[in-house]
Amino acid sequence: MDNAILLISCPDRKGITATITNFIFHNNGNIEHADQHIDFQTNTFFMRIEWSLKDFTIPRENIRKKFNAIAEEFKMDYALYFSAQTPRVAIFTSRLTHCLYDLLLRYKEGQFKYSIPLIISNHPTASEIANSFGINFHEIPKTKENKREVENKEIELLKKENIDLIVLARYGQIFTGEFVKEFPNRIINIHHSFLPAFVGKSPYEQAYSRGVKIIGATSHYVTEELDAGPIIEQDTVRVSHRDSLADLKIKGQDLEKIVLSRAVRWHLEHKILTYHNKTVVFD
Amino acid sequence: MDNAILLISCPDRKGITATITNFIFHNNGNIEHADQHIDFQTNTFFMRIEWSLKDFTIPRENIRKKFNAIAEEFKMDYALYFSAQTPRVAIFTSRLTHCLYDLLLRYKEGQFKYSIPLIISNHPTASEIANSFGINFHEIPKTKENKREVENKEIELLKKENIDLIVLARYGQIFTGEFVKEFPNRIINIHHSFLPAFVGKSPYEQAYSRGVKIIGATSHYVTEELDAGPIIEQDTVRVSHRDSLADLKIKGQDLEKIVLSRAVRWHLEHKILTYHNKTVVFD
Amino acid sequence: MDNAILLISCPDRKGITATITNFIFHNNGNIEHADQHIDFQTNTFFMRIEWSLKDFTIPRENIRKKFNAIAEEFKMDYALYFSAQTPRVAIFTSRLTHCLYDLLLRYKEGQFKYSIPLIISNHPTASEIANSFGINFHEIPKTKENKREVENKEIELLKKENIDLIVLARYGQIFTGEFVKEFPNRIINIHHSFLPAFVGKSPYEQAYSRGVKIIGATSHYVTEELDAGPIIEQDTVRVSHRDSLADLKIKGQDLEKIVLSRAVRWHLEHKILTYHNKTVVFD
Amino acid sequence: MDNAILLISCPDRKGITATITNFIFHNNGNIEHADQHIDFQTNTFFMRIEWSLKDFTIPRENIRKKFNAIAEEFKMDYALYFSAQTPRVAIFTSRLTHCLYDLLLRYKEGQFKYSIPLIISNHPTASEIANSFGINFHEIPKTKENKREVENKEIELLKKENIDLIVLARYGQIFTGEFVKEFPNRIINIHHSFLPAFVGKSPYEQAYSRGVKIIGATSHYVTEELDAGPIIEQDTVRVSHRDSLADLKIKGQDLEKIVLSRAVRWHLEHKILTYHNKTVVFD
Repeated sequence: MDNAILLISCPDRKGITATITNFIFHNNGNIEHADQHIDFQTNTFFMRIEWSLKDFTIPRENIRKKFNAIAEEFKMDYALYFSAQTPRVAIFTSRLTHCLYDLLLRYKEGQFKYSIPLIISNHPTASEIANSFGINFHEIPKTKENKREVENKEIELLKKENIDLIVLARYGQIFTGEFVKEFPNRIINIHHSFLPAFVGKSPYEQAYSRGVKIIGATSHYVTEELDAGPIIEQDTVRVSHRDSLADLKIKGQDLEKIVLSRAVRWHLEHKILTYHNKTVVFD
Repeated sequence: MDNAILLISCPDRKGITATITNFIFHNNGNIEHADQHIDFQTNTFFMRIEWSLKDFTIPRENIRKKFNAIAEEFKMDYALYFSAQTPRVAIFTSRLTHCLYDLLLRYKEGQFKYSIPLIISNHPTASEIANSFGINFHEIPKTKENKREVENKEIELLKKENIDLIVLARYGQIFTGEFVKEFPNRIINIHHSFLPAFVGKSPYEQAYSRGVKIIGATSHYVTEELDAGPIIEQDTVRVSHRDSLADLKIKGQDLEKIVLSRAVRWHLEHKILTYHNKTVVFD
Repeated sequence: MDNAILLISCPDRKGITATITNFIFHNNGNIEHADQHIDFQTNTFFMRIEWSLKDFTIPRENIRKKFNAIAEEFKMDYALYFSAQTPRVAIFTSRLTHCLYDLLLRYKEGQFKYSIPLIISNHPTASEIANSFGINFHEIPKTKENKREVENKEIELLKKENIDLIVLARYGQIFTGEFVKEFPNRIINIHHSFLPAFVGKSPYEQAYSRGVKIIGATSHYVTEELDAGPIIEQDTVRVSHRDSLADLKIKGQDLEKIVLSRAVRWHLEHKILTYHNKTVVFD
Repeated sequence: MDNAILLISCPDRKGITATITNFIFHNNGNIEHADQHIDFQTNTFFMRIEWSLKDFTIPRENIRKKFNAIAEEFKMDYALYFSAQTPRVAIFTSRLTHCLYDLLLRYKEGQFKYSIPLIISNHPTASEIANSFGINFHEIPKTKENKREVENKEIELLKKENIDLIVLARYGQIFTGEFVKEFPNRIINIHHSFLPAFVGKSPYEQAYSRGVKIIGATSHYVTEELDAGPIIEQDTVRVSHRDSLADLKIKGQDLEKIVLSRAVRWHLEHKILTYHNKTVVFD
């Protein structure tokens, strides 16, 4: 599979789809997926279009240049991706390793194509797991005092490895706004509640104490405000008065793994657009 | 079916279940359902036990007196109900009538046994519906200024009709603490969100604006604090960026009907105990 | 809203989307929704495209003629609809009226736009309901012996009323292949199980007896083979050993209403394509 | 925690619960969980009762003998378990190792207490995984011809290790009736469909071909008839026309892991009773 993928957003007006599909067709591309959405409240047009580069007459390094004329005409924000390019993912984790394990097993089973050049943790717990999958492990502890300093070291490391996506697999630490700004819409977190309920610390304890009958998990892009970034995916599971706090955690962790893995998969397949702190997830 | 039902809570200690079941057995009752739960955090024992009054040697009017000795010994809070007694339900509604219709249709289909002596609304919308089901309709408008006065009229009406349960079927008005105190654990509300997310006004608008991927509905007992009473039941449904606010409402209203009807059914079957602002729902 | 909608399927090849969107753009139409899908197993292209007729330069009565050239070139099967045209729905029902009621209430609440010229039943039960909503009611009993004869009467009635869609709201009777052939992909049935489990009679009894932990409901287009047509929508709900057969029915009926109403809505919004006994449902 | 657990079934009659709870109370046991269920169709009484052995006056080795008098009086089938006794689980697997991995990770995380003395597979794939968790691995290939012979070897191995539960984690091989008879209600299988839909080979392919909108997974006790034993747990997930067969497998495998792990957990916590090819699962 050797495809190009365009993710586009722009003010809606006549002719956008025709212009884009003509661009592909007249250069001999075969469209494999095309999905569009119009937000009528804000008159915004969104599109994900994927076409085969087999027989496509524009060399991949020139596509961007050629497409720019269209993008300018329609005032588009756009991103161009190639399916042949394997995304590079860094995983941040901490003591709880179920999400890390889950991502590594999906990686090993070939569920989705990416490489994992490094795993970062503020605890040594995941070291052995990283080794058993042959992945570089960096133990980088953080304190309130040295946070910015340590983050700069992390940023350096991530840039050196050309990381496309940072996945927070129950990392537990909060990044500064400076760190977040370096990777806009490129940090995915799993929060172990049905956001916006139970923001912040100990969501299972909060849920248990409130006596909810359903618990959830939420994957979202990280923004400067805690647990308030664009939601990518959520799922829920039923609980009852019989479920202890420990039961909530067991049930919830099963959700966390699935909800995080879906977000990672969709991001790496370039299916997600963000706007107004929300996501469009093309399926 | 002519059964007695006991709902019991007390500090846990040895011998509670044996004592209760002996009481029933030695008076020749046949236990049809028995369910217990211990909250180990607070060392509290909860039980729902239901037995057939056929052959039971204590006349129903004396059961309470006889059981009091046990209740005192174990410092029990308890309530005694008889399945032969049809609960009397008052429905409060407003302009949106889907929940009202749903309850009336279940009533008509005989899904659960109760009588509905009256429907109260602050708008005339439901009047025709009430009439078509042969139920008394009271239009009682409210303003901020006359709220307490009007509530007193409502209380009088409800007491005169010996109402066992008040169901707020998208009533929309907030009761004062004085009103709520008159009917502890006897007012069930449906809130059109997955509580504690989106408390208060316009939860669908809030959900739409936050960009959640799942919406919910919550039925709960009304307490003095808005949307903060013990949760009885919740359910959720998936939404996407394609769902407009109107779609959210359509999907959500289907949930509301189901989630409210389950809470009403369980309450009328005497399956719900409350403690620490949570519910034990015996199934 | 005055839109045109095209539902298209054809063998996949280069240029389909470009050609269709050009057709709309060059005639000054504004695309509001466009969704496509390629089944790579069978190399089949599917599309739903909806555009505003405001400013569209081809009068609606000529669109078909103009589009035919494109359709022929790409060997398309296609259907053209206009949102301004209110679909005409006939409901068939029997003794159990919960699905009928549900459709009528959604109709009354304006959830989706259609007219219901007639309700047909083999029992008188629904007569009063039909009257209360001001809809013509035809009681048409059937026996094995007179089935074909009666069906011919029904066909005549349906054709006279220009019925676009027949909804079987727990009708219970099986149509002959002759009847079904008159309305290909225009009869929607609700089956009260998670098909293909529990085909045919008494699915709740079958589910109860098998001891499943989840029950379902399925809406599908009716084909000559019983309960084997293209599935449009399914949903499920959890049950336990505590649920009696009567409980299964109560839970299941809530599903039936939702699952049927979704299928009807999507059909009337022209969102469903069928192929190889499956459906593509554009959302 | 040092508890005793009784799982009981018998014909229903007056006094069962009183007699059992008296037995525990008069011997100074503290009941921690008690759950009962009556199947009114068959007049069968089911109970799970768990009590603390701290201060219990009957030594554990004599409980059975003492309880036998009660069991005989009420014609009970019963089983007695001790929470202090760690169940011994054998896992059978094959080429697909996601369920195996899932069980091993839950085991490692201490989600539920059991020991895994051995893993058996007809392929070498899982060998390395077993080693990395420090568990004995037996590669035992099977052919149609040598099946009974090989099974006898397996039975010998399992009996030697005092195996309490056999878990088929996508084992793929069918056991003979002779094997199954050796372990009644002690073999749990995960079937990758929503049973009874899609029995037998390639359920995902069957589901894909039928065009269902929801797929499922089912854990059940193995009986002589293929995929027809008592269902313990099921769960489902939504799919659409966009999901390829490979997508169905990814979504389904997430279900398989959860649905199998729940069944294993409940079995090991002695929460499951079977009757009439169904299960009572006390929560």
